[in-house]
Amino acid sequence: MSSFTPHPADETAIATIRTLAVDVVGKANSGHPGAPMGMAPVAHVLFSRFVNANPKNSKWFNRDRFVLSNGCALQYVLLHLLGYKLSMDDLKAFRQLDSKTPGHPEAGHTDGIEVTTGPLGQGFANGVGLAIAQAHLAAVYNKDGFDLINNYTYVFAGDGCLMEGVASEAASLGGHLQLGNLIVITDRLEDISIDGDTAVAFTENVEQRFLSYGWQVLHVDDGDSDLVGIAGAIAEAKKEKSKPTIIRLKTTIGYGSKQQGTHGVHGAPLKADDIEALKSKFGFAPDQKFQVPQATYDLYAEFGKRGAALEAEWNSLLQSYGQKYPKEHAELTRRIAGELPAGWEQTLPVYKPTDAAQASRKLSEITLTAIIPSLPELMGGSADLTGSNLTKVKNSVDFQPPSTGLGTYAGTYIRYGVREHAMGAIANGLHAYGGIIPFVATFLNFVSYASGAVRLSALSGHQVIWVATHDSIGLGEDGPTHQPVETAIGLRATPNVAFWRPADGNETSAAYLVALKSKSTPSILSLSRQNLPNLEGSTIEKATRGGYVLHDEEKEDLTIVSTGSEVSIAVEAAAKLKEQGIKTRVVSLPCWLTFDQQPEEYRLSVLRSGAPILSLEALSTAGWAKYSHEQFGLPAWGASGPYQKVYEKFGITGSNIAAVGKKVVDFYKQKGGEVVSPLVKAIHL
Amino acid sequence: MSSFTPHPADETAIATIRTLAVDVVGKANSGHPGAPMGMAPVAHVLFSRFVNANPKNSKWFNRDRFVLSNGCALQYVLLHLLGYKLSMDDLKAFRQLDSKTPGHPEAGHTDGIEVTTGPLGQGFANGVGLAIAQAHLAAVYNKDGFDLINNYTYVFAGDGCLMEGVASEAASLGGHLQLGNLIVITDRLEDISIDGDTAVAFTENVEQRFLSYGWQVLHVDDGDSDLVGIAGAIAEAKKEKSKPTIIRLKTTIGYGSKQQGTHGVHGAPLKADDIEALKSKFGFAPDQKFQVPQATYDLYAEFGKRGAALEAEWNSLLQSYGQKYPKEHAELTRRIAGELPAGWEQTLPVYKPTDAAQASRKLSEITLTAIIPSLPELMGGSADLTGSNLTKVKNSVDFQPPSTGLGTYAGTYIRYGVREHAMGAIANGLHAYGGIIPFVATFLNFVSYASGAVRLSALSGHQVIWVATHDSIGLGEDGPTHQPVETAIGLRATPNVAFWRPADGNETSAAYLVALKSKSTPSILSLSRQNLPNLEGSTIEKATRGGYVLHDEEKEDLTIVSTGSEVSIAVEAAAKLKEQGIKTRVVSLPCWLTFDQQPEEYRLSVLRSGAPILSLEALSTAGWAKYSHEQFGLPAWGASGPYQKVYEKFGITGSNIAAVGKKVVDFYKQKGGEVVSPLVKAIHL
Repeated sequence: MSSFTPHPADETAIATIRTLAVDVVGKANSGHPGAPMGMAPVAHVLFSRFVNANPKNSKWFNRDRFVLSNGCALQYVLLHLLGYKLSMDDLKAFRQLDSKTPGHPEAGHTDGIEVTTGPLGQGFANGVGLAIAQAHLAAVYNKDGFDLINNYTYVFAGDGCLMEGVASEAASLGGHLQLGNLIVITDRLEDISIDGDTAVAFTENVEQRFLSYGWQVLHVDDGDSDLVGIAGAIAEAKKEKSKPTIIRLKTTIGYGSKQQGTHGVHGAPLKADDIEALKSKFGFAPDQKFQVPQATYDLYAEFGKRGAALEAEWNSLLQSYGQKYPKEHAELTRRIAGELPAGWEQTLPVYKPTDAAQASRKLSEITLTAIIPSLPELMGGSADLTGSNLTKVKNSVDFQPPSTGLGTYAGTYIRYGVREHAMGAIANGLHAYGGIIPFVATFLNFVSYASGAVRLSALSGHQVIWVATHDSIGLGEDGPTHQPVETAIGLRATPNVAFWRPADGNETSAAYLVALKSKSTPSILSLSRQNLPNLEGSTIEKATRGGYVLHDEEKEDLTIVSTGSEVSIAVEAAAKLKEQGIKTRVVSLPCWLTFDQQPEEYRLSVLRSGAPILSLEALSTAGWAKYSHEQFGLPAWGASGPYQKVYEKFGITGSNIAAVGKKVVDFYKQKGGEVVSPLVKAIHL
Repeated sequence: MSSFTPHPADETAIATIRTLAVDVVGKANSGHPGAPMGMAPVAHVLFSRFVNANPKNSKWFNRDRFVLSNGCALQYVLLHLLGYKLSMDDLKAFRQLDSKTPGHPEAGHTDGIEVTTGPLGQGFANGVGLAIAQAHLAAVYNKDGFDLINNYTYVFAGDGCLMEGVASEAASLGGHLQLGNLIVITDRLEDISIDGDTAVAFTENVEQRFLSYGWQVLHVDDGDSDLVGIAGAIAEAKKEKSKPTIIRLKTTIGYGSKQQGTHGVHGAPLKADDIEALKSKFGFAPDQKFQVPQATYDLYAEFGKRGAALEAEWNSLLQSYGQKYPKEHAELTRRIAGELPAGWEQTLPVYKPTDAAQASRKLSEITLTAIIPSLPELMGGSADLTGSNLTKVKNSVDFQPPSTGLGTYAGTYIRYGVREHAMGAIANGLHAYGGIIPFVATFLNFVSYASGAVRLSALSGHQVIWVATHDSIGLGEDGPTHQPVETAIGLRATPNVAFWRPADGNETSAAYLVALKSKSTPSILSLSRQNLPNLEGSTIEKATRGGYVLHDEEKEDLTIVSTGSEVSIAVEAAAKLKEQGIKTRVVSLPCWLTFDQQPEEYRLSVLRSGAPILSLEALSTAGWAKYSHEQFGLPAWGASGPYQKVYEKFGITGSNIAAVGKKVVDFYKQKGGEVVSPLVKAIHL
């Protein structure tokens, strides 16, 4: 399909995209008409001649992936014209409440959207993830005569995306990984971004930069009308199998508008008279809105037919594959369906209190080692902290271009380099592709470098597992620059993020269990550098509820609620308090999100009324007042030193917490009255 | 000083740095010996021959700035040898509790440290900020015959720093800005990072990449011993006045160790026998620790003498300058002292309730317009959202290389491009330089792209002001991808971050007032896109306390505490409740940090006992239980649509909040007993 013969219907279709984008943005009176107008020609050429996808089944596994990194109305216009489940009424509801067409495209919200875009740079990096996924699954499952997984990933990006560090990181890694099926098309937009001319801030030589990353660089000087040139560049990009390609198109922002070539068309709708003039120019009725000539619908109907035929072909190929390779077929189809293999939970390690104390990062490694043989969909990696995160299990193979001699594309361990933000965004792409559950790793403190990506994992429902080690002052000597204080509450406050801070072996297994079962929730596993004892009273089952009573007392005087490395300190404090006749329950609350999802009755039994509740965590206390009456934690930054001394400095020791607990008990006695659980509220959101 | 004649004492000094670094790390039994050992030759050449600085006055304004982006023990070893206030005992206390030598260098904590490093990529971007500051102040204050401000900024960085997106962003901008006095020296370390060979993830052509950014690229193939080559490269870098320079040194990580050239020497101390062999090799006593030959102290004493002489010279130059240019002299010395001009506060806008409603982003623009003429130290900019952030006041000039024709180095408005993370880190560098108070801007949601830099602002005490607009669902149509939910609590939980969410004009003025007076605290001004009425009861003075009673009632039934755009909704709800006989106070709490710093008596008078307190904010409710009994906010993500409809969808309207308030009042009546302020606690951290 890669040869290109221009046809009059092409010009009509391009004009349709342009005018429709203008009307969509105009009706909403909000949005960016410039990019869709400028990118219309390449969008048309790409979809009418190159993209293999079936609009009637947007989930066909071997479809080409398309990412609009500078997410805007163009995507909706295309989805409608191409025959996805997006009606003209949906277009008319652009940026209206509860529509299928929110301000920026959201994966899982609108049929045919692969990844959520808008926050710049993310889509570009997602594209690298989608391409890694393709290369990996192809290497694992394709066989002679069964080129089952061979799709391309096409990314449209603007200069705004290219300025973002997350895109730079991803581009460097994408070049290293020689991702031949990744094709990025950028519009130079005659150097316009929101601040005006990109010359005010962006004068680097983009082509040279991408060459330095090992990309093939192509360009089309007249992206406004040289359809043959555009098609030729895409065809050339497809031919290059050992490098990703970037095609630089020079286009005119808001082409056809009176304001074309100015940043006035980037962020605001066109004026009425401009819209009319533009429509006349393109041969459309100036006074009519939302016009789609039948010729355009007909042309794009071919896209749908082609896609449906390709899918049917692919389905029979898959069937024959199943006959010849039943084991691989079963595994692949299971992975595509997003189902975990039966019985995998049995491989999760179970611990007794007599088992040796271990750092929870080590417990994570033990868990990964135990489960990875049953779960080929786990594709891990670290941002250059493998030896500290303990994420590479024995005998795992690096995901690397075979030519490097360092691994193969069938390898499951990705060396992300020191690129946390791209790692998070690439993982979103890996999950968006399907058949893969990515885990990624860095120190908890540096998850915040990637918060733009974590947020979009959560919003899009990407099951990405973060192995976030060195999760408190317990990392010791590296000091405050590396000791998270505020990171946990930022993540806990992000909707749909499961932030787990396991206290011991069983809780670590529980965290993995819930994380792996939560198909549309990212999980952050906050893990210690220092050793933690296995606790009396912890079980995988109890911990999977997100919070439970680790140590119970009848008619208690105090409950201490804690997480992770501080739970054993709470236990120690409780024992000391008992010596003084103060009965103290200990609640472990490894995951707020999971706990909040339990029935009210259960939650009220764990954090019950009757005695004050004191929270304990070696982090900021922010947020803990939701679960406790009193809070103990770090007053500000941590400190550099051997971790035991740092804990002592901040009073997070069994004996000081016992003293704090006593103070709390005395205070509430003196105060008098009933002590009501903090969960008892008038308002539940 | 730039010609280089090798001297036997040079080799001794280099060997001293190497062995001292090994001993420092060895005693701490923690840290990274590899980089200091490899970078010893270039560090020696740089400091002994090029750097102008006075160890007896580390704050001399025209000193060369030195940044160790891959922050490690090397910095402490150098400070000690060069004669800064860091004793051998301090070196021996490396990574010990409360020492002057924490795990990674912290600005403000240790004499001679310019910026906090360790989190990779930050120092590199700080360096770009330091160089911008130099170029700017030189353009503003230097005169013929008075080359007052002409220092260089030297940055050491590793490949880890170069992989980080924040460094890529900063490098691209630094090239655009033609920062001739910026010299970055990177050790290729024979391609070793923590994950092993950088070949596993970092095979890009770094030199070509920096050429694409417009940098001068130099390299030294034998960074281990070619001192003449190193000195020649630095001299060449200094000559190039219209481009920043990167010098790529090939060095051997852990040079001299048995493990040299392996990643085993990156993150862990050397073994005892290796240390002994290494010392013998360099002619040191194998069994002695912390050896500094007198020849080395003597050599570095020259550094101190030179620096002291240069400072004395500079001081007389400054004095003559004062005679010829008294006005500039007064302004420059005031700025260097970090003092604001007398009476500037009088320029802050004051509002009456009858003044027109305005978006707080617009109020911010009005404030900036009013105060900038009195405050030349304000150096602003936006990450390509100038028209939305409203940060460029009329007649301000762009900070641009004059050759671009777009501005001058005397300009105060920086076009950061779409580079939020670099913007934050560059701003830290601008403040670290002195004489500049940077403000930077983006949407609140994208401050999180820069959280690595914001955290270091706070830890280092950099007065950086973030103009963070579009701060809630009130941005409307852009939708959930752009609507912050969790951002505020993440920032509020960061120690030393003043997160301001002003409700109207007076509160906006108050936020700027406090932010500008807080010399060592970053402030985030969270500002609305939508119009907000000026409130009855708000004053600048009251708002500077961080929280105050906006609307009072005696013997209230309810208090609503709110911030920013929701305060007027709380006022509306209170009026509706009053109609039902429910007396409702309204508290505005624009800045938690500032409120928390008020005397307890004041705080308890604002959030007093006696009636339930309901919080209201169009964000996650996380953290609000500290200040309220009940919380209302967003249950999860926002939504795309006209903002009024989005507010309605989530029940954040006067009438619904009145209904919620009534529910709260009824609930507490039914519950009975005294309602105690949430501020009344047993534990105060």
